[in-house]
Amino acid sequence: MERVLAAKLAAQIGQRVRVAGWLHQVRALGGVTFVLVRDRSGIVQAVFDREPAELAGVQPESVIAVIGTVVAEPRVALGVELHDATIAVMSPVTEPLPFELNKKVFNPTLETLLNHAPVGLRHPTKQATFRLVAAMGQALRAAFIARGCTEVHTPKLVAGATEGGANLFPVQYFDRQAYLAQSPQLYKQIMVGVFERVFEIAPVFRAEPHATTRHLNEYVSVDVEIGFIEDHRTVMAFLHSSLVETFTSLAETHASDLTLLGVTVPMIGEIPSIHFRDALQLIYERYGEDARDEPDLAPQHERWLCEWAMETDGSPFLFVTHYPTIKRPFYTMPDPMEPAYTHGFDLLFRGLEVTTGGQRIHRPEQLLASMARFGVSPVPFGGYLEAFRSGMPPHGGFAIGLERLAMQLMGARNVRETTLFPRDIHRLTP
Amino acid sequence: MERVLAAKLAAQIGQRVRVAGWLHQVRALGGVTFVLVRDRSGIVQAVFDREPAELAGVQPESVIAVIGTVVAEPRVALGVELHDATIAVMSPVTEPLPFELNKKVFNPTLETLLNHAPVGLRHPTKQATFRLVAAMGQALRAAFIARGCTEVHTPKLVAGATEGGANLFPVQYFDRQAYLAQSPQLYKQIMVGVFERVFEIAPVFRAEPHATTRHLNEYVSVDVEIGFIEDHRTVMAFLHSSLVETFTSLAETHASDLTLLGVTVPMIGEIPSIHFRDALQLIYERYGEDARDEPDLAPQHERWLCEWAMETDGSPFLFVTHYPTIKRPFYTMPDPMEPAYTHGFDLLFRGLEVTTGGQRIHRPEQLLASMARFGVSPVPFGGYLEAFRSGMPPHGGFAIGLERLAMQLMGARNVRETTLFPRDIHRLTP
Repeated sequence: MERVLAAKLAAQIGQRVRVAGWLHQVRALGGVTFVLVRDRSGIVQAVFDREPAELAGVQPESVIAVIGTVVAEPRVALGVELHDATIAVMSPVTEPLPFELNKKVFNPTLETLLNHAPVGLRHPTKQATFRLVAAMGQALRAAFIARGCTEVHTPKLVAGATEGGANLFPVQYFDRQAYLAQSPQLYKQIMVGVFERVFEIAPVFRAEPHATTRHLNEYVSVDVEIGFIEDHRTVMAFLHSSLVETFTSLAETHASDLTLLGVTVPMIGEIPSIHFRDALQLIYERYGEDARDEPDLAPQHERWLCEWAMETDGSPFLFVTHYPTIKRPFYTMPDPMEPAYTHGFDLLFRGLEVTTGGQRIHRPEQLLASMARFGVSPVPFGGYLEAFRSGMPPHGGFAIGLERLAMQLMGARNVRETTLFPRDIHRLTP
Repeated sequence: MERVLAAKLAAQIGQRVRVAGWLHQVRALGGVTFVLVRDRSGIVQAVFDREPAELAGVQPESVIAVIGTVVAEPRVALGVELHDATIAVMSPVTEPLPFELNKKVFNPTLETLLNHAPVGLRHPTKQATFRLVAAMGQALRAAFIARGCTEVHTPKLVAGATEGGANLFPVQYFDRQAYLAQSPQLYKQIMVGVFERVFEIAPVFRAEPHATTRHLNEYVSVDVEIGFIEDHRTVMAFLHSSLVETFTSLAETHASDLTLLGVTVPMIGEIPSIHFRDALQLIYERYGEDARDEPDLAPQHERWLCEWAMETDGSPFLFVTHYPTIKRPFYTMPDPMEPAYTHGFDLLFRGLEVTTGGQRIHRPEQLLASMARFGVSPVPFGGYLEAFRSGMPPHGGFAIGLERLAMQLMGARNVRETTLFPRDIHRLTP
């Protein structure tokens, strides 16, 4: 007998059907026993006049099949339930689980959740979380394709560093040393020379030895690079409209997951923008901290700036532009009017940087001069420099940390909550 | 003045427009000079009565902008050309390139092409190749989503081997050793316990020390795993219909790239299937090689079997099922009728394996027994085994090497021809 998904049962009232899934819960209520079966589409209950003998000694999460008659039942979310049912146990669970997955409130410590992720991820709230992460990736991808981008797959095993030598994981590559790519930066720029507009959604690796709530040592980087731009503002506009489409799509296609998690997708209007120097001045005037000589923003600065943007413009997003040249990688385009600052930007969302981007240098002589200033040897950058000698248009791009954007959208307190199997300095398993 | 793409010019006849792209070619013909500009949408020619002074000393691939009037010209593919044009050079190329990108025939040695990939990939045939690779990934993804799969992102840094200890790249992970994932196998199985149906398209890493035309040390693995199957045939049917959709989609959406490359997408009908034992018997009878005691197929065997399938069924595809248990990983479901063979299969396409798949063991006690038989310690598989103790349905899946499928579809002789920046024992750059 063909299996029917829970969500399709409402179309089969009166018929005998077979459902299969995980034993979510057994509930005895006033002489009636409800057996709840969870499949990928939802939860259906089968009604028995007593606890079914097949379930004796069997724990929740056992995989079972239930054959029964579909009966309308307006009091349950599905609108139907199963009567006159029989149960077959396909994979019994015999030991107690680390979590009660059938309780609405699911609040294990993060450590326990991560240690037992293969089970904990089954909780409906975790399922909803990772359906949203998947959908966010899909929607971003669709937005990039609609804007003329070609997807590329660039190597994660590289001979040298992208942006200096730090934070690289070394790999024993046969008889020599390789590294894990920190970013597809150089490759996506090369590919602008081929396709003008490219994107890649793939893992990147950062050997940063600190453990924070917002960093991981491996994460999914959503990378875009586009050619024939005016300056960094072309890139910001591309990012802005892609995010609008992504958030709109999530709200439309994943309303029930969002509701389950209590998440409201913010409607993105105009995103305000502030020059890095003005940002530090604003912090000084408004919050009394004088960081006007600092070359970068501290986490508290990002929170303050977002507080200001929300109060002033009602925007949960804020662009900070023109980061100082000394704190950006060698390929960042300096502002021609004021070369101590760059055409590099960050996008902050609810107090945290979720995207870094900017215009890049496209003339080879300017690139070589910048490498010299940064003390970067051109020798390991042979292929990269060949692309520039062979004609590169003005271009720029950005990178979004997928898990971090999801974390901020969902109001999670730790990026590990929006990562299936996070990797950090302490954790390589499960 | 806003830039217009070449492909959009036909809608602007009579207007002054600005195009920008790479200087593809300068052609002098009977007192007229044609300047061909290539952008991501195509090639447009601007017509001059003599060689434009702006191009003196400037090589092909220079980035230029051309302002001109759009005039109908039925003799060119685009249907229009530019008259009364002026040129601005945005990024001049001053040294000769390693290739002539404006010649129809593009036949550098593979070594030269790979050494200068940042330039060689710009040739229209290489662009077409990698647009097809991208489109193939998109179409597979769409097919999986349409079949109820959720995309997952699983870690590439792992603590141990998936399938034994061989072929792993070691990574120095802070103060301990990690490895690069050979496959998302264990994680995709765990995620069947969460979402029933999952897929991942991501890099995998194989430290195989041999250099062949069909292997890479890093490649894009298209992985699917689905629950609640009958047996391996459910997986084969899923794969079959996904490939039909993918190939149909490619033929519809990328006709001009396929034409440029001279590639005909085969229409996939029924895919014949042969038991491993029968395959070796057939090779013995038809080709005279007695490999009936071998536990695996050699490359020549795959070619012979595909020759047979083409002659007998007219099919460029062939499923070989029931590979011997000793040559498949410990998690492969043995055939209950004949446990020396498995519910594991390969899909051959034009003489080469492009997919490996099968049904997996889903009961924890059977899994532990199989690990014991294979001499695999259960200790490093804690999280994996926890998923099985917590209820796993009958399930199975497959993995497609994206570059290899593209290689076979396009009739390339080497998988490096369908990989942007291939990695092998000799090559880590560019």
